Amino acid sequence: VLGLADDAALLTPPPGRQLVLAADAMVSGVHFLPDDPADEVGRKLLRVNLSDLAAMGAVPLGYLMTVSVPADLPPDWFDGFAAGLAADQDLFGLALLGGDTTSTTGPLVLSLTILGHVAPGTALRRNGAEAGDDIWITGTVGDGALGLDALQGRVPDPDGGLARRYRRPEPRVALGRRLAGVANAAMDVSDGLLQDLGHLCRASGVAAVLRTDLVPASEAARRLGDGVLERRLSGGDDYELLLAVPPDRTEALRREAAAAGVPVTWIGSFEAGDPKVVTLDADGKPVELARSGWSHF
Amino acid sequence: VLGLADDAALLTPPPGRQLVLAADAMVSGVHFLPDDPADEVGRKLLRVNLSDLAAMGAVPLGYLMTVSVPADLPPDWFDGFAAGLAADQDLFGLALLGGDTTSTTGPLVLSLTILGHVAPGTALRRNGAEAGDDIWITGTVGDGALGLDALQGRVPDPDGGLARRYRRPEPRVALGRRLAGVANAAMDVSDGLLQDLGHLCRASGVAAVLRTDLVPASEAARRLGDGVLERRLSGGDDYELLLAVPPDRTEALRREAAAAGVPVTWIGSFEAGDPKVVTLDADGKPVELARSGWSHF
Repeated sequence: VLGLADDAALLTPPPGRQLVLAADAMVSGVHFLPDDPADEVGRKLLRVNLSDLAAMGAVPLGYLMTVSVPADLPPDWFDGFAAGLAADQDLFGLALLGGDTTSTTGPLVLSLTILGHVAPGTALRRNGAEAGDDIWITGTVGDGALGLDALQGRVPDPDGGLARRYRRPEPRVALGRRLAGVANAAMDVSDGLLQDLGHLCRASGVAAVLRTDLVPASEAARRLGDGVLERRLSGGDDYELLLAVPPDRTEALRREAAAAGVPVTWIGSFEAGDPKVVTLDADGKPVELARSGWSHF
Repeated sequence: VLGLADDAALLTPPPGRQLVLAADAMVSGVHFLPDDPADEVGRKLLRVNLSDLAAMGAVPLGYLMTVSVPADLPPDWFDGFAAGLAADQDLFGLALLGGDTTSTTGPLVLSLTILGHVAPGTALRRNGAEAGDDIWITGTVGDGALGLDALQGRVPDPDGGLARRYRRPEPRVALGRRLAGVANAAMDVSDGLLQDLGHLCRASGVAAVLRTDLVPASEAARRLGDGVLERRLSGGDDYELLLAVPPDRTEALRREAAAAGVPVTWIGSFEAGDPKVVTLDADGKPVELARSGWSHF
């Protein structure tokens, strides 16, 4: 369908660099809506994987993809899909290295393996957070989940801004690759801030104190009021970077964030203790939140 | 399900080598039978991809995998699947580098990206066959397709040998990596010998004369008689290596094949001319074959 042959590809790895590899699959009706625009599905597939590279501080290199296609998919669907891929390949400096097309009796399944590279020993990991580190987050939190809610008619979205954030996440590649020696740990937020902060705590063996009032919201999310706080913090599909940064590197973080053109916000601190996430308001009082697991729909 | 997290993996590529990358997907009900043993499905998934590495002459390195899982798949299915993967990881020297598990409302979809490596400039390609080269094939041809026929009750298979060949192909990795400087071109036979020989002709800009009587058949296939010739030559799932070798390298080919423990058989020659495959019998008379496309079922 996309000219994907089952030939193998040859790649000369950048000399003296480590490779970073990640794979993610997206299923129609699970990770995207069957009537999402095809070009946006292509871009989201790449961007979800680019976000994995961003979280490791890697420079994008290329990707392989398999597509399993139901018989009733309109043939021109792949025109849009390929156009979306091409746009983001250019934007992020990625080459399509190979892949495979198969049929399926079920929904469209897209599987992508992405390759990037880092200087040896400089990859960001999720297990390096230390007690005393500050918690920082890029961009705004909650627009992905609210965008899905908007597309499904559960919240208003007069200018479509939330839906755009759901469909086209912004992988923080430009910032991630600048954070070696700045962040002690990093991960991208795909399952929801609370859940992913919990993952980072468990990987690093520390506790987190999160100031929920400081978690940055977009203008569109703010218009929806305080009632969406829990949805914003436990919904997924943000693809922002969650960072652990020692206080004496605050200026370095701000400098790199400014250079990458990415806003960063302080939202709490890591502490010694069993892995858990404590949520506090501006007055230091506990905020009770149901931490239901995120399902993409 | 398999402990696949969405973390990215770090890989230090072997210094001074080129990477070889390929991706293939397998869908339940399309590429394998829903009641195929789970361990054999795991092994076939790896072996189909290993065959791509074999055709390039690459040394296996590792793989990433995504699995999209229907709700009704028995949870213990993955125990068998993982056991099959583990067995072939050991056998072929592969490491699992990462992956992702998702749900799907359709059939089980398995997508695998494999990595291998070659000395720079030595990868085998399908576009190097020259007029005057001999056509060679490894192993026997047709057992994969006949094995599927046997599993579906269309041909007898008293000792189950054909079914085993369908379920567990033998990727010719040990031979492929010995053929740099011996074969001018190589590809693996997955769509059927006639079709794949045609692909090789088109990629190389040559014609092929195939002696159908010389195409090696297993003992089990021979027992089915001449009536299965067409099925053997146009069925798929052989995963044997199809090679273009200049006559003055015949001894080198035989030596490397013996060292790798892989039988090789001369089955024809490449000639100057428009890309096409001419099929002749032992008397030099044309053999008429319907070259229907191979569908896995």
